[in-house]
Amino acid sequence: MEVPLLAGDFLRRAVKLYPGQEAVVDGELRLTYAEFGARVNQLANALAALGVAKGDRVAILSPNSHKFLEVLFATHAMGAVVVPINYRLIASDFEYVLNHSGTKVAVVDSDYAGVVDGLRGKLPTVEHYVTARFETEEVLPGWEDYDALVAAQPATPPPDPGLSESDTLSINYTSGTTARPKGVMITHRNAYINAYNAIAHWRITQDDREMWTLPMFHANGWGGPYAITAMGGTHVVLRKVEGAAIYQMMQDEGITFACMAPAVLATILEFPDKGDYSIATRPRFVIAGAPPPQTFIQRLEEELGWEFIQIYGLTETSPILTISEIKPHLGLTGESYYRTKARAGQEVIGTEVRVFGSDGEEVPWDDESIGEVAARSNVVLAGYWEQPEETAKVIRDGWFFTGDMATVNQDGYINIVDRAKDVIISGGENISSIEVEDVLYKHPSVLEAAVIGVPSEKWGETPMAVIVPREGTSPTSDEIREHCRALMAHFKTPSRVEFVEALPRTATGKLKKFELREMYWQGKSRRVN
Amino acid sequence: MEVPLLAGDFLRRAVKLYPGQEAVVDGELRLTYAEFGARVNQLANALAALGVAKGDRVAILSPNSHKFLEVLFATHAMGAVVVPINYRLIASDFEYVLNHSGTKVAVVDSDYAGVVDGLRGKLPTVEHYVTARFETEEVLPGWEDYDALVAAQPATPPPDPGLSESDTLSINYTSGTTARPKGVMITHRNAYINAYNAIAHWRITQDDREMWTLPMFHANGWGGPYAITAMGGTHVVLRKVEGAAIYQMMQDEGITFACMAPAVLATILEFPDKGDYSIATRPRFVIAGAPPPQTFIQRLEEELGWEFIQIYGLTETSPILTISEIKPHLGLTGESYYRTKARAGQEVIGTEVRVFGSDGEEVPWDDESIGEVAARSNVVLAGYWEQPEETAKVIRDGWFFTGDMATVNQDGYINIVDRAKDVIISGGENISSIEVEDVLYKHPSVLEAAVIGVPSEKWGETPMAVIVPREGTSPTSDEIREHCRALMAHFKTPSRVEFVEALPRTATGKLKKFELREMYWQGKSRRVN
Repeated sequence: MEVPLLAGDFLRRAVKLYPGQEAVVDGELRLTYAEFGARVNQLANALAALGVAKGDRVAILSPNSHKFLEVLFATHAMGAVVVPINYRLIASDFEYVLNHSGTKVAVVDSDYAGVVDGLRGKLPTVEHYVTARFETEEVLPGWEDYDALVAAQPATPPPDPGLSESDTLSINYTSGTTARPKGVMITHRNAYINAYNAIAHWRITQDDREMWTLPMFHANGWGGPYAITAMGGTHVVLRKVEGAAIYQMMQDEGITFACMAPAVLATILEFPDKGDYSIATRPRFVIAGAPPPQTFIQRLEEELGWEFIQIYGLTETSPILTISEIKPHLGLTGESYYRTKARAGQEVIGTEVRVFGSDGEEVPWDDESIGEVAARSNVVLAGYWEQPEETAKVIRDGWFFTGDMATVNQDGYINIVDRAKDVIISGGENISSIEVEDVLYKHPSVLEAAVIGVPSEKWGETPMAVIVPREGTSPTSDEIREHCRALMAHFKTPSRVEFVEALPRTATGKLKKFELREMYWQGKSRRVN
Repeated sequence: MEVPLLAGDFLRRAVKLYPGQEAVVDGELRLTYAEFGARVNQLANALAALGVAKGDRVAILSPNSHKFLEVLFATHAMGAVVVPINYRLIASDFEYVLNHSGTKVAVVDSDYAGVVDGLRGKLPTVEHYVTARFETEEVLPGWEDYDALVAAQPATPPPDPGLSESDTLSINYTSGTTARPKGVMITHRNAYINAYNAIAHWRITQDDREMWTLPMFHANGWGGPYAITAMGGTHVVLRKVEGAAIYQMMQDEGITFACMAPAVLATILEFPDKGDYSIATRPRFVIAGAPPPQTFIQRLEEELGWEFIQIYGLTETSPILTISEIKPHLGLTGESYYRTKARAGQEVIGTEVRVFGSDGEEVPWDDESIGEVAARSNVVLAGYWEQPEETAKVIRDGWFFTGDMATVNQDGYINIVDRAKDVIISGGENISSIEVEDVLYKHPSVLEAAVIGVPSEKWGETPMAVIVPREGTSPTSDEIREHCRALMAHFKTPSRVEFVEALPRTATGKLKKFELREMYWQGKSRRVN
């Protein structure tokens, strides 16, 4: 028997078997699975009443909220396609995404309703604007109120839309470190298999309580909404990420699990009043994005006694591709243990990941040879929404090419060394900007560092470092360069060092190197050429 | 991107990422994943050299052994269909299964080669007989030697057979408590999703070491070969199940996990020399089949400190349908905790299970109303091999009907009360023979008990008990009946009690009630009518 793998099935099971279990905790609001499931049905019926049919797009622009989760599962239940929007973007981005996706109904948190309202004349496909109020904010004229829409509908399940597992579940716009964002089409099968992989490797059980530090819009919360719901666990929503709120929540809510960007991990580790809280669980923290300094991992695991899990993936891969599990037969301890944990790791089950060199062959497992990470898996996107030519660029010969460059060590653990375009080629040598950044981070005065390639008449490119100094320190350029020269090959040492107050980052904490390059490439050009 | 869900992919990953990890421990033999993977490829190449092509059937008749696991994965790698045969059957059964499946190559453990050799004139489809020697037994004339076949082949992977996930992976013949065994066709997709479900609910990790007490032929080891291999865990093979060997293995091999029939659990609990062994792990024991007495669970969890997990499923469902997880929000402790743990439990993820009454509606969750268990899931068989009419009997309107009767309690936990045909209908009342057996087990002199319906002029049927008394006790029929009357409704009390030395059981420990019924129905008929 074959039954379509549909993401909505996870909630069906939770409502049936865990009706009295807490599904969502959001501020003062506590919803059991029975209550949450009823609200999801009500919302699905409300969307249908607004004219949303199978395959229509419904956008959600909101910080983490129980309403975000409701929109996810309501669209799945009725067969609509959800378009989660990065709320840290600007008005012109919202306009682009809403128009490009052909969104019919836009659900917008009160914080962003004003901005979207200002775009109304420019959004021809949007037929309904719905305000998801955080507290008691006003509903703008011409907008509908989320709570009123939900309240007006019965909690009976919507008619079965007859989905196939190949149908699109969401269109997730990539955060756009380069060009215009592209719409990643994730199918029900993609999300379902990613959820299975997450449950297996994150070891999700019915006892888990996930703290939502990760923005839910980001690759559908990395699949957490499905994995936690599937097993009957609890979502504990954090609207704003700050140290005290995190510790308070971990203590009061018995948090066992969280996904987060490296910056949030830093917030947790640097929080000065840790001692004021008593945390009885041993939470597992899943981190993606740039590999954190080893000391972060060490402090988390040794000082706090919690578990650090590095993963790697992309919006295009639902997102999980690899995980930094320490294999028992390697017997890693101490330094080698933490060094391995900081890597992107090895492919999760249900996924094949290879690193291909420029000759099209897999690179040797020597941790020196750099190649492009490619994946073959049911978690890989169906394609880019209305951009088949972009799809054809990244899916070739049955492999999805990530654009990320990596090495593989002798035990098969991948290390992401750079975005393809972020590799600096200096005098014919490849320099990983991340490797240089790692060295910079070892300097006691460096809080944050970014390395980019800048033009050089002699070498083609040379590395340049942009540094945020730690408070109370005033490092000099020479001091930083000496530090680098002591720790790595001369050609890798930044030829120029600049100090700034902050680095440009995307919503998910990734460095926006293209912005830095724009800034310094121009500056450099003027001076050198 | 859609990639077929193929069971062989689990081994591909383990060989790639866990080459130095122990894959299989079998007596003195220890194979890493690199070694095991190489042997699997060699065997796949050997089968191809014998003329086995995609879709051809290869039978394996063997106790638990590394060779059994090799046959599983070798057939998957080359696209053949494996036919695992219950070695506890008799010659005429072997003949039936080999002929009905159209087996081309029969791989037979030395213990059974003699029996199969005696059938050779009657097996027209079998082209090759291969002896899998346990130690240094002789190879019969006309037979090929497994080890020699493997040794003669290269360890390069066999050519990709181009399987689809809907292709049949195995034909598992049901143990035949009723008619001729039927061949259950399990597809790659069936086995793959069952493995995901097993990993999720059994919480399988790379650190797991499974002790193979469960016969591997039984529903492909309940999916354990896939779940453990997927995560990079270790298979520790037990050829013969006995107390001392089990404890020795648990101690020496650091066993963390095992699946078993209730009889094996009893062996473990009753083993007198427990104190001689020091077991540092806290193994999880997964039990299927008849629900064990609560005291078994209590002793396992409280005295030994190990974890008891009851599951329910059928060969037709790959096999996992339900699991007895205690939901945290119920707050069950003590008696209610153990009573719930003894139930078949609730549907696993990826699976929908309902209990339908004779009116076709789901029974209420009152733990009184009895209905038939049905499932809708990707773990449900594709069909019975060459018996489409049998398939049509069990898969109706998108549901697979198990033939098992159950109640559902207020929290959604299913309790199997009987096989459909084992419900005793007495004076219009349904009597669950298992319920009566449970009461009998509470009598101190009862070691084993079976209850069947026997004809009655007045009531149509009445319950009859067949009892194996504990050593050193001599209970009387009246004493047993009084015990029952004190504990349950009068109409449920056995009208007749017989004492025997042993009960007829199938290879997997299920009572063969049809045999009892044949014996006593006739007897009863003679006396009553």
